[in-house]
Amino acid sequence: MNTTEILQRLEKKEITIEEAEKLLKAETATDELEYANIDYEREERTGVPEVIYCAGKTAVQVRGIVQNMREHGQKHILGTRCSREKYEAAKEVCPELEYEELSRIMIYQPEPFPLNKGKILIACAGTSDLPVAKEAALTARFLGNEVEEVYDVGVAGIHRLFARMDTIESASVIVAVAGMEGALASVIGGLTDKPVIAVPTSVGYGANLGGVTALLAMLNSCASGVSVVNIDNGFGAGYMAHSINCLTGKREEK
Amino acid sequence: MNTTEILQRLEKKEITIEEAEKLLKAETATDELEYANIDYEREERTGVPEVIYCAGKTAVQVRGIVQNMREHGQKHILGTRCSREKYEAAKEVCPELEYEELSRIMIYQPEPFPLNKGKILIACAGTSDLPVAKEAALTARFLGNEVEEVYDVGVAGIHRLFARMDTIESASVIVAVAGMEGALASVIGGLTDKPVIAVPTSVGYGANLGGVTALLAMLNSCASGVSVVNIDNGFGAGYMAHSINCLTGKREEK
Amino acid sequence: MNTTEILQRLEKKEITIEEAEKLLKAETATDELEYANIDYEREERTGVPEVIYCAGKTAVQVRGIVQNMREHGQKHILGTRCSREKYEAAKEVCPELEYEELSRIMIYQPEPFPLNKGKILIACAGTSDLPVAKEAALTARFLGNEVEEVYDVGVAGIHRLFARMDTIESASVIVAVAGMEGALASVIGGLTDKPVIAVPTSVGYGANLGGVTALLAMLNSCASGVSVVNIDNGFGAGYMAHSINCLTGKREEK
Amino acid sequence: MNTTEILQRLEKKEITIEEAEKLLKAETATDELEYANIDYEREERTGVPEVIYCAGKTAVQVRGIVQNMREHGQKHILGTRCSREKYEAAKEVCPELEYEELSRIMIYQPEPFPLNKGKILIACAGTSDLPVAKEAALTARFLGNEVEEVYDVGVAGIHRLFARMDTIESASVIVAVAGMEGALASVIGGLTDKPVIAVPTSVGYGANLGGVTALLAMLNSCASGVSVVNIDNGFGAGYMAHSINCLTGKREEK
Amino acid sequence: MNTTEILQRLEKKEITIEEAEKLLKAETATDELEYANIDYEREERTGVPEVIYCAGKTAVQVRGIVQNMREHGQKHILGTRCSREKYEAAKEVCPELEYEELSRIMIYQPEPFPLNKGKILIACAGTSDLPVAKEAALTARFLGNEVEEVYDVGVAGIHRLFARMDTIESASVIVAVAGMEGALASVIGGLTDKPVIAVPTSVGYGANLGGVTALLAMLNSCASGVSVVNIDNGFGAGYMAHSINCLTGKREEK
Amino acid sequence: MNTTEILQRLEKKEITIEEAEKLLKAETATDELEYANIDYEREERTGVPEVIYCAGKTAVQVRGIVQNMREHGQKHILGTRCSREKYEAAKEVCPELEYEELSRIMIYQPEPFPLNKGKILIACAGTSDLPVAKEAALTARFLGNEVEEVYDVGVAGIHRLFARMDTIESASVIVAVAGMEGALASVIGGLTDKPVIAVPTSVGYGANLGGVTALLAMLNSCASGVSVVNIDNGFGAGYMAHSINCLTGKREEK
Amino acid sequence: MNTTEILQRLEKKEITIEEAEKLLKAETATDELEYANIDYEREERTGVPEVIYCAGKTAVQVRGIVQNMREHGQKHILGTRCSREKYEAAKEVCPELEYEELSRIMIYQPEPFPLNKGKILIACAGTSDLPVAKEAALTARFLGNEVEEVYDVGVAGIHRLFARMDTIESASVIVAVAGMEGALASVIGGLTDKPVIAVPTSVGYGANLGGVTALLAMLNSCASGVSVVNIDNGFGAGYMAHSINCLTGKREEK
Amino acid sequence: MNTTEILQRLEKKEITIEEAEKLLKAETATDELEYANIDYEREERTGVPEVIYCAGKTAVQVRGIVQNMREHGQKHILGTRCSREKYEAAKEVCPELEYEELSRIMIYQPEPFPLNKGKILIACAGTSDLPVAKEAALTARFLGNEVEEVYDVGVAGIHRLFARMDTIESASVIVAVAGMEGALASVIGGLTDKPVIAVPTSVGYGANLGGVTALLAMLNSCASGVSVVNIDNGFGAGYMAHSINCLTGKREEK
Repeated sequence: MNTTEILQRLEKKEITIEEAEKLLKAETATDELEYANIDYEREERTGVPEVIYCAGKTAVQVRGIVQNMREHGQKHILGTRCSREKYEAAKEVCPELEYEELSRIMIYQPEPFPLNKGKILIACAGTSDLPVAKEAALTARFLGNEVEEVYDVGVAGIHRLFARMDTIESASVIVAVAGMEGALASVIGGLTDKPVIAVPTSVGYGANLGGVTALLAMLNSCASGVSVVNIDNGFGAGYMAHSINCLTGKREEK
Repeated sequence: MNTTEILQRLEKKEITIEEAEKLLKAETATDELEYANIDYEREERTGVPEVIYCAGKTAVQVRGIVQNMREHGQKHILGTRCSREKYEAAKEVCPELEYEELSRIMIYQPEPFPLNKGKILIACAGTSDLPVAKEAALTARFLGNEVEEVYDVGVAGIHRLFARMDTIESASVIVAVAGMEGALASVIGGLTDKPVIAVPTSVGYGANLGGVTALLAMLNSCASGVSVVNIDNGFGAGYMAHSINCLTGKREEK
Repeated sequence: MNTTEILQRLEKKEITIEEAEKLLKAETATDELEYANIDYEREERTGVPEVIYCAGKTAVQVRGIVQNMREHGQKHILGTRCSREKYEAAKEVCPELEYEELSRIMIYQPEPFPLNKGKILIACAGTSDLPVAKEAALTARFLGNEVEEVYDVGVAGIHRLFARMDTIESASVIVAVAGMEGALASVIGGLTDKPVIAVPTSVGYGANLGGVTALLAMLNSCASGVSVVNIDNGFGAGYMAHSINCLTGKREEK
Repeated sequence: MNTTEILQRLEKKEITIEEAEKLLKAETATDELEYANIDYEREERTGVPEVIYCAGKTAVQVRGIVQNMREHGQKHILGTRCSREKYEAAKEVCPELEYEELSRIMIYQPEPFPLNKGKILIACAGTSDLPVAKEAALTARFLGNEVEEVYDVGVAGIHRLFARMDTIESASVIVAVAGMEGALASVIGGLTDKPVIAVPTSVGYGANLGGVTALLAMLNSCASGVSVVNIDNGFGAGYMAHSINCLTGKREEK
Repeated sequence: MNTTEILQRLEKKEITIEEAEKLLKAETATDELEYANIDYEREERTGVPEVIYCAGKTAVQVRGIVQNMREHGQKHILGTRCSREKYEAAKEVCPELEYEELSRIMIYQPEPFPLNKGKILIACAGTSDLPVAKEAALTARFLGNEVEEVYDVGVAGIHRLFARMDTIESASVIVAVAGMEGALASVIGGLTDKPVIAVPTSVGYGANLGGVTALLAMLNSCASGVSVVNIDNGFGAGYMAHSINCLTGKREEK
Repeated sequence: MNTTEILQRLEKKEITIEEAEKLLKAETATDELEYANIDYEREERTGVPEVIYCAGKTAVQVRGIVQNMREHGQKHILGTRCSREKYEAAKEVCPELEYEELSRIMIYQPEPFPLNKGKILIACAGTSDLPVAKEAALTARFLGNEVEEVYDVGVAGIHRLFARMDTIESASVIVAVAGMEGALASVIGGLTDKPVIAVPTSVGYGANLGGVTALLAMLNSCASGVSVVNIDNGFGAGYMAHSINCLTGKREEK
Repeated sequence: MNTTEILQRLEKKEITIEEAEKLLKAETATDELEYANIDYEREERTGVPEVIYCAGKTAVQVRGIVQNMREHGQKHILGTRCSREKYEAAKEVCPELEYEELSRIMIYQPEPFPLNKGKILIACAGTSDLPVAKEAALTARFLGNEVEEVYDVGVAGIHRLFARMDTIESASVIVAVAGMEGALASVIGGLTDKPVIAVPTSVGYGANLGGVTALLAMLNSCASGVSVVNIDNGFGAGYMAHSINCLTGKREEK
Repeated sequence: MNTTEILQRLEKKEITIEEAEKLLKAETATDELEYANIDYEREERTGVPEVIYCAGKTAVQVRGIVQNMREHGQKHILGTRCSREKYEAAKEVCPELEYEELSRIMIYQPEPFPLNKGKILIACAGTSDLPVAKEAALTARFLGNEVEEVYDVGVAGIHRLFARMDTIESASVIVAVAGMEGALASVIGGLTDKPVIAVPTSVGYGANLGGVTALLAMLNSCASGVSVVNIDNGFGAGYMAHSINCLTGKREEK
């Protein structure tokens, strides 16, 4: 909506002066953001608004983007890789923002998206993989999915995984999070007919090469029905799982 | 089904002598295969029978496995990375086997699987990526999916891709096949809300490092909703796309 | 100019005693710089004076080099990868030095170089790529070029780029700055007939391998007319763009 | 031009029946090429027609593409990485095609493009780098440039390079082709103010890693005004040099 | 034993003239081998004679080494990575040599070494890993071990492995052979308290990087009690397993 | 043991109220550990309890796991890669925990495991490899092995190693720890018939690539009877050595 | 010399009680050093005493080693990669130790080694390479060589190097220190008949990969008579240059 | 010598007409070599004529270069990496050329260079390393050095090396050739005070990565006085050893 349109709507009394002021400010804000070019058409195009990847941005930039989104009336804000300091900055302009420490995710979402029918399962191999698993879980929930989490079921004690077969079978998509040799993805892939999104983590040391080992192993999985996202990319896995889960349709509202 | 069971069923006249002989032979055959241990329970577990990856096997081994599968009454046989020579060997014991030259796939499937409702789109960047794209397409069709193919739509002439937006939007899953810098996956990922399976190919030279460049680029896609399979792994992409497409349900038989 | 020449010129009254003192001091200064060997002939040879790459130098060395250049009458000083601390040190001996925080560039340039006719466009994919883009822009401006900047036009929202086609077409050289999968270079390369200098950035994580992924992707661009500089090398891109833009000739002075 | 337009032009007698037939056949031909999607708008967009990268295509595909281009009235056909066998196949449908053995380039170009004013210099380090240097030279000439070649001027005998300084200074763009440690690019870059396109070659053994060593070295050149294309990518360098040289303007026709 | 010693023993009638001749010839033979320096003291030092790694040697060299060993009275000859052609050459001078095609091993061993008490299990993931598994099995048997083989028990059909738990538990050392993502080693390692020697194979394609992926994955196994040998190094694994199995002591002769 | 069983045993007076409370608390604790899923069956399965890898866990998580293990009556607790801060946290709930600074290992073990008959030798190349060697030594001792340590016997002064041949020969398993070029493993492997576990360390700089060089060198050892664990993985080497040493049987109790 | 020998010499009055005490203390000291095993025979074997590589050692260990060497009467102590903190610790037990900040070298050498006849030249490409160049220069001087230093003569301004040809020709060995693309080694190698030791440095960024680029480039030098040491290994280069320079013989004492 | 000079010398009767013709032809020949630019000044500059690296050249080019050198009166021709086919071609124009099969070296040298005083020792680890060792030996002999060869003295049987200590000590420079883990260089480096040139070979498989493992290991040698040349670069090692050995001076002619 541009300036002319806003004024026309005011003239037609479709909006109040206060509303017009707010809309005009939003526009101004956009112009002021010389470091970002927010893709407000994305929600229309893909059903999901632009997500803020905070890692390479300053606290000032993160705050500015959140402010700009609020001024455009954005109802769903998700920030990933967000340090507490950047979250605090953003909270100044959006006090309702919530923060989850482990996954470093911040969320503002007064009303949730409608739920998809299917359920997403997040399984992770070890305690050290939790931050990535949480990032995936929170992302998928934010986007409108029922999410179940199963943690510390790595293949060194494979019975722990088998004890959860019912849970695995009840999901429509599975996200398998693992570092070290990443064998969890192959084992789950061999046990189920559901699509598996594998997330390698940088957990481990020495020849794990910062997660490259788990990444390579997952790409070479001997099981079929497994595809892979970037190292530590819990967000990407949660998003992909949502994108797949959408094919199950939306739940009927009660 | 073990020997005792077969004989019991014969006794109960549930099967004929001929059938019993065939079943017993199948069992024997299994025992004879000292180099392979075919997973006949997989179809039950995952809905898809074991697929023959021919690359590391001798022609004699491939023929033996096909024979063994036929003797077990297997109705759906798919062989990938199959040289013409290995296909010829297998054809001796299964004359109905068909072969597609470009993708090096062999198929025996007297009756197709029931079709999934959704459609799978295979898009590839250049003519040189065709063998991999074909492998994905044939795999997905074999598993029971409607498949549409869009070829040579690389980003150096991006209007060719935009001209096919309708096709892209009509699919429920998209497989993006590209070598060189693999940018096709990101561009498609940014244009659609459907899950995109990216397949890097080894097409290119020099610093493409045998496909590793395209692989890395796809894993780092700035678009969301993209996950990746191994280099040149058309089969894996077709299988993953099928696995996702199953969530759309089966088409009603007419 | 050596000691003898300075004294001869003094004798001939071509210079004053003050000037002679200054020149002699400059010479001394050179001798004192045991850690650097400044290439004062470079400006004559290539039209551009030696640039100070501050990253591997101590604050004391940076200050010494700036002092030495001033004493030689150097009119154009550019320091790159300069921490604020090193800038502060250099400012002590050259108070007119200016500093740009984001790009970590310091500049002393009382009179600009004559402007080239053509315009250089700097396009970057995301907010996190800004420091590198700014380094390119400031370098190109320092060397005497009109520079236009277009930020946050990554391929995940490709319409933002298409909205700027006029700007792209008005430039004589384009610098494309991108991290992650670096697809921006290929897309721009496919849309224009102008030379594109691609700058991979280290923006991203995991399998981006500190920018190597974007670097490899750009080297394998399926578009023609693209060449590449080192990861995060905004300076190199700005310099190369200037070097190309020189072929358009100098603007006439008004 | 689509079918309707062709028929309209026939009706208006702007074209003869023979011409109309030819045009319709061209269109048909496009439809027949299921493996390629030739970008006939590229010449309009970038001034250069689509080039055929033959390496990943079969002889039949190369021939089909050449035929299709001829039928569309394409006047400038360049095929790179073309084996003699593929050239022979293409020659069947385009007898005027010429072939250069060393660079594996085939060219059909009844009338040259207009010449750019500036001159392009191709310098190579050793005899073994010749195929890549020739690919660059032929590409640049095809696109409409005066090209001068200076061979075997590697830095192990640096006086051979200095003996050619006049030639270097007379060029507007320089392409430096080298394998092994690739030092030629840095040395030339330090001697001139002209843009240098560096082409690493796979010449060498052991730790040259198939050209990766020269590539990395060139990307890290201590000289400014150097940018790099893919390993052995003579075509890319020739194209980039042309793209830059266009800024010097076209020569006046005599 | 040197020439003087041989003659002294002859003089003392400790040996016959024939024996002396044979011993002198052996010595001569050693001198003739200018390309090899056989370590005849190794058997004394480590209990195992020097093994012939045929890969980097010519057929003539392999034959010469076998002849030399026979002339020294060597009773246990093992040649690995031996092409049929080299085997044929060696057979000329040692007709009792036997050859196993799949593992490319040749053996001459008129009398076996005494058997170790414990049993070695060789488990492999897929049919394509057989050559490496066989190399391990034949090496271990040659050195004096009872060996059991379990093939095609990869983790994509993990029930096949569980069906063999009794066999796994009856072994004192386990060799796990796998390509692709190499998860077999971790799964076995998690199920047993016996030492596991993991052998990565080069089976797979694309991002398996010639076996490096399986190697890295095995080195990062989340299970304890797993150590790793070089890619495709069946010999090394068989040898290591033997070296460990020796700790169980020798079987009593009946 | 679940709640019902505990109460039944209380009812039958098999346990006291205090014991019941403790057991119920243990159960509760387990339920509270949402970040870990301790494998209490491992000791039964492999003879060794689950070991705590502290590196990727928070101090709170480490303390929680230790508390949970104590409440389950765990008698053998080993924590590796444990910072002093995490140790301090864990000590709050298990005051008997001891800490070794160099290896960053914490141990709680009121009663040792029974000793294996054979002896384990830990040899390391340089002073800088000590932390890894100590981790191996402490792990092996914890698991019930006599351990001898020989330090700073690198191959640059090979006589220091030869001076310890008696020690080497008295061991049943040898752990060779070395950084840089890791040649120690090959030299020891060539001198003994005992199994050698090689541990590459990240000691060195530049082209040691964080230990990858030593890792690769050890995997390519020209000596037989050598297998390798991950870089800096002293724990893994100690565990593997124990696993092998178990084959020598347990020492008789006096 | 062991305890018995010391006492015998005391008895024979070959040494005083004070000397005996000192010798016994030295021996004790050795025994106390459980973390190091100093190779006191090295000076006899190679003419150079063991050098202390301080990087992987604690301050306490460094001090202990220096003390131990002093107590053994060691007259030449060289410590490399020594932080100021470690130097301060060592100085407590050896107050004459001197420290050079840039190269992080500490030296105790009351009397120099006799000088070799030939001269060693250290040439470095840029100011940022100075720490490595200094390490080479100080090492070579410590070992008894005349050393000349030429700094900041990188190939981007190649005339600065040519201006020093006389110096180059007067040396018997040349150490060439360079980061980035490391071309200095090739250029010097092509200009001289003297052996050149190339030292790659980690100076640069992005695709310099921590010095690996310069390392690879130097290994692939097109000039002959160049060999290479590890990245940033100034010590190794100085030592190698000394080892070569010894062939020129010792200078006569005046 | 240029045309004018030749004619002047003819006029002065310093040369005959035949000689003048030959010299003029040589000059013409140079002009004819459009693919090579032979550095005839190198012998003057470095004492060694340009060597022909045949690998990247065609048989016709190799023959042309040899002919050109002969016509210039070149007395010392060395061709490396020369296939038999290229040798045969060159022999047509230089019948005295000799060829050594294993090292693929061809030599024409009617009169040897004067001998250096010192001796060069070539030591290699295994039979498979022989071709590289021979290349080093022949190169060093060609350049005027006494060369001694010691083969198959790898560290797996280290006593074989110790048996040759006298030989090692009698050399002034040592070339150590080894593949696999390349430990030979470190062990020799620790035993001698002479400079050691290490040559990694591509011998081995799997994680030897085509010789990169041995290269890295040698660069990280814990012994001092070791420098490294490229993988399989026997020529480079022989040349470097010669360059060092020159410092011992020339032997007096008898």
